[in-house]
Amino acid sequence: MESAPLYRQLAQHYLHAIETGVLKPGDRVPSVRTLMELHGVSLSTALQACRQMESDGLLEARPRSGYFVRHRRHKPLAPIEEPVATLPDPAQYVGIHERISAITARGHQQPVAVNFAGACGAPALYPAQGLRNAAARALRLHPQLFGSAADSGGHPAFRAVLARNALLSRITVAPEDILVTHGCTEALNLALRAVAQPGDVIAVESPTYYGLLQILESLGMRALEIPSSPQTGISLEALELAAQTYDNIRAVVVVPNLQNPLGSIMPDANKAQLVAWCDARAIALIEDDCFSALAEGDAPLAALKAWDRSGGVIHCASLHKILAPGMRLGWIAAGKWQARVEMLKYSQSRPNELLAQMAAAEFMGSGAFERHLRRLREQLRSQRAQVAQAIAAEFPAGTRASNPNGGLHLWVELPGSVPSEAVFDQAMAAGIRVVPGVMFSNSNRFDHFLRLNCGTPFTLEIERALRTLAAVVARLADKP
Amino acid sequence: MESAPLYRQLAQHYLHAIETGVLKPGDRVPSVRTLMELHGVSLSTALQACRQMESDGLLEARPRSGYFVRHRRHKPLAPIEEPVATLPDPAQYVGIHERISAITARGHQQPVAVNFAGACGAPALYPAQGLRNAAARALRLHPQLFGSAADSGGHPAFRAVLARNALLSRITVAPEDILVTHGCTEALNLALRAVAQPGDVIAVESPTYYGLLQILESLGMRALEIPSSPQTGISLEALELAAQTYDNIRAVVVVPNLQNPLGSIMPDANKAQLVAWCDARAIALIEDDCFSALAEGDAPLAALKAWDRSGGVIHCASLHKILAPGMRLGWIAAGKWQARVEMLKYSQSRPNELLAQMAAAEFMGSGAFERHLRRLREQLRSQRAQVAQAIAAEFPAGTRASNPNGGLHLWVELPGSVPSEAVFDQAMAAGIRVVPGVMFSNSNRFDHFLRLNCGTPFTLEIERALRTLAAVVARLADKP
Ligand SMILES: Cc1ncc(COP(=O)(O)O)c(C=O)c1O
Ligand SMILES: Cc1ncc(COP(=O)(O)O)c(C=O)c1O
Repeated sequence: MESAPLYRQLAQHYLHAIETGVLKPGDRVPSVRTLMELHGVSLSTALQACRQMESDGLLEARPRSGYFVRHRRHKPLAPIEEPVATLPDPAQYVGIHERISAITARGHQQPVAVNFAGACGAPALYPAQGLRNAAARALRLHPQLFGSAADSGGHPAFRAVLARNALLSRITVAPEDILVTHGCTEALNLALRAVAQPGDVIAVESPTYYGLLQILESLGMRALEIPSSPQTGISLEALELAAQTYDNIRAVVVVPNLQNPLGSIMPDANKAQLVAWCDARAIALIEDDCFSALAEGDAPLAALKAWDRSGGVIHCASLHKILAPGMRLGWIAAGKWQARVEMLKYSQSRPNELLAQMAAAEFMGSGAFERHLRRLREQLRSQRAQVAQAIAAEFPAGTRASNPNGGLHLWVELPGSVPSEAVFDQAMAAGIRVVPGVMFSNSNRFDHFLRLNCGTPFTLEIERALRTLAAVVARLADKP
Repeated sequence: MESAPLYRQLAQHYLHAIETGVLKPGDRVPSVRTLMELHGVSLSTALQACRQMESDGLLEARPRSGYFVRHRRHKPLAPIEEPVATLPDPAQYVGIHERISAITARGHQQPVAVNFAGACGAPALYPAQGLRNAAARALRLHPQLFGSAADSGGHPAFRAVLARNALLSRITVAPEDILVTHGCTEALNLALRAVAQPGDVIAVESPTYYGLLQILESLGMRALEIPSSPQTGISLEALELAAQTYDNIRAVVVVPNLQNPLGSIMPDANKAQLVAWCDARAIALIEDDCFSALAEGDAPLAALKAWDRSGGVIHCASLHKILAPGMRLGWIAAGKWQARVEMLKYSQSRPNELLAQMAAAEFMGSGAFERHLRRLREQLRSQRAQVAQAIAAEFPAGTRASNPNGGLHLWVELPGSVPSEAVFDQAMAAGIRVVPGVMFSNSNRFDHFLRLNCGTPFTLEIERALRTLAAVVARLADKP
């Protein structure tokens, strides 16, 4: 892995100076010329560093005087607290589908000016042009593309690229052992159907991605919500406690890297421990790894499957968040359940069509993919920083937020007992869509949380929307 | 609707003369010049009629002497007998998936020279070029296509074309009430999941498309096989008898038009009766209408949903057989279950991606679609006729076959008790793939049947393969 570009290192240096109080709000930072001399960098590097800090909201440019440290009207956001490793709720059917559908339907009744509810980045963050060229080329090269059914399992070139990429997550898997699916959603459905029956208990993180709760409910399976840390993900102590109480846990589903909504990343030691724990109990371990390419840091994150020795880990992922929200391309490597997963895929939807697979294979096989990812991570980092700063500046005291090391989302805890559904409704009335915390659990435990998507380039309009949102929260917080 | 072209009418006229013995094998048919005078048609029409009959295997051209009626070495094939309306087998789990997978796996172990096992036509039968141009245009017109997630429900233009097309089947449905799916397969999964639970009993035709048996098994539902007529489809008497015995039938699934494998078409009176019968018992009626555009005849066939007054009929179809085997595009209009089907689709695979929908919408909205269908029907008619004739000429006495009014398949009953799996294995050894009858039922009732796909233009190679197949059958029939 390459280290961060020079201008980022420079910006980091001054960020550190600001955070430690060496540079205070209102202080002038060294001029661009001075930066060049001090650090021995080029004009463009010095300029890029300043612009970066400006777009991150750390500095402000004053015409003809240079860059100054911005006044922060607020202390940095406090982090979300660690959960207590309590016994989870008894698993039960609670109509999460209807709750979510009702909220979603309300969200679609009104025009949306600013959308913080997305599940991926803004279109401008993805290489639509490159993918489109690749697709056009595939059409030219394969005149009979639409005339015959696709390879079962997936397009060989696409599976080969996926297998090569998996090495970065320390997974060794043959192309033939990867099955292409309609997104991570289909992969999760297949994984669950392969290892569990209706009525079975499935342990999930709490809070968890609502899509997973919907899948479980639609399959008639029961979600057992395991407390999870905003830093390290699922609590292994709580999981152990749960297993002592419920002897019928059939599978564990986790997002080990950049969990949705927490943004947590499981440390390698926890990953190893979880794989061994499941293996010892013959509990299937399903990982949803659709965000890990969005993590910052020098080395890519390992997948749970990196520790899999017995074929008991099912790895699911997709391109939806990292490359192409407009393609329905996901995949699954299901270890010892692969044959059953293939059969279920065939009977559920048949093999995916070829065109998108060909285009994605070409793009991902070129250097453009890694360049795109680097740019995307950088944009998301800056956008998250700016949203976080606006929250710190505008939201009522007592607001807490996650500070994930990558990804699309911030998980925001509202002060007092502000109900997220009320925030949702009042924000909607102002044309602003958020995801209320109630959607991330079958319980009401996260009722005073919001998930905010930071996938859209930060603009004045977004800043204003966050101010409106803050006012909505403040108004509700003041109510007795 | 337009009636058959003039040359087809002329060919029909002489076919009739041959079938009734007015013209005998070896007889010379009137010269092209005489045909022109007799029937008042143009040179090209008279020529086309003769070439048609030649390619259908009715006539042979002798250089410089004209066309002669071919010698048939065999009486016309006897039709498949009507089933007896017996009580169906008790519904049970029988591992159809494993049986089918085992057969399919054997089929993939050896190279295939001639494939009679396909589920659609040869690539040359589909307008790959037109679809490809439409896709390229969509890519040009929508630069952000891969950058953002697709409309839920489906692309509006595609749904609008589907709604317009549905009028031909006498279905009135709004575009918003059509949900785009990954093929008819996904539509059937959603329909069944919407109306039934694991353990529920589902009435199906017998024989039936093995894909449906796989879907039922994978959903943990139980198939109740209802005897079905090669002419008129599911036996309503047998269904009534079944309902008197099993009071827990939750849904009926039928292919009303060109059933797979029988090729049967339900008469309108039966369709009306079946819809009313299900309605009166609050049994969901799921129709799989993916072949009807391949039916010959002057007027398009009506769908079951044409008689639906209460929203109890779920209509499923796809483009796989009629337009684009290489696109995974199907749809569902689920009447009163539409909201539940939408929810299940969302949680099973999210909305389909846009590109193929855009390309299909453009193609289907143009006159090219109807021109393609006319050509396709004509090709299939001729190919079916030639395969049927080769069977009549080469297979042992006692062989029977369906004579469907359209579609891709012939359903062939082997004489004596020749087991289709043995035929399958011995044919595979000669590089010929067929579908053995055992795959079309959870019972062994159709063990001595084969389904032959006629979707490939008839060549000497195919004629030779049918001769080899006939020899395999004859050898097995001679065994004690
Ligand atoms: C954790 C998680 N898994 C899966 C998905 C769905 O992925 P896909 O669009 O590939 O089906 C999402 C997207 O919202 C997600 O957040
Ligand atoms: C009766 C029937 N239904 C459904 C299908 C599958 O259709 P699709 O490819 O659109 O999923 C087939 C194809 O073999 C079929 O014969």
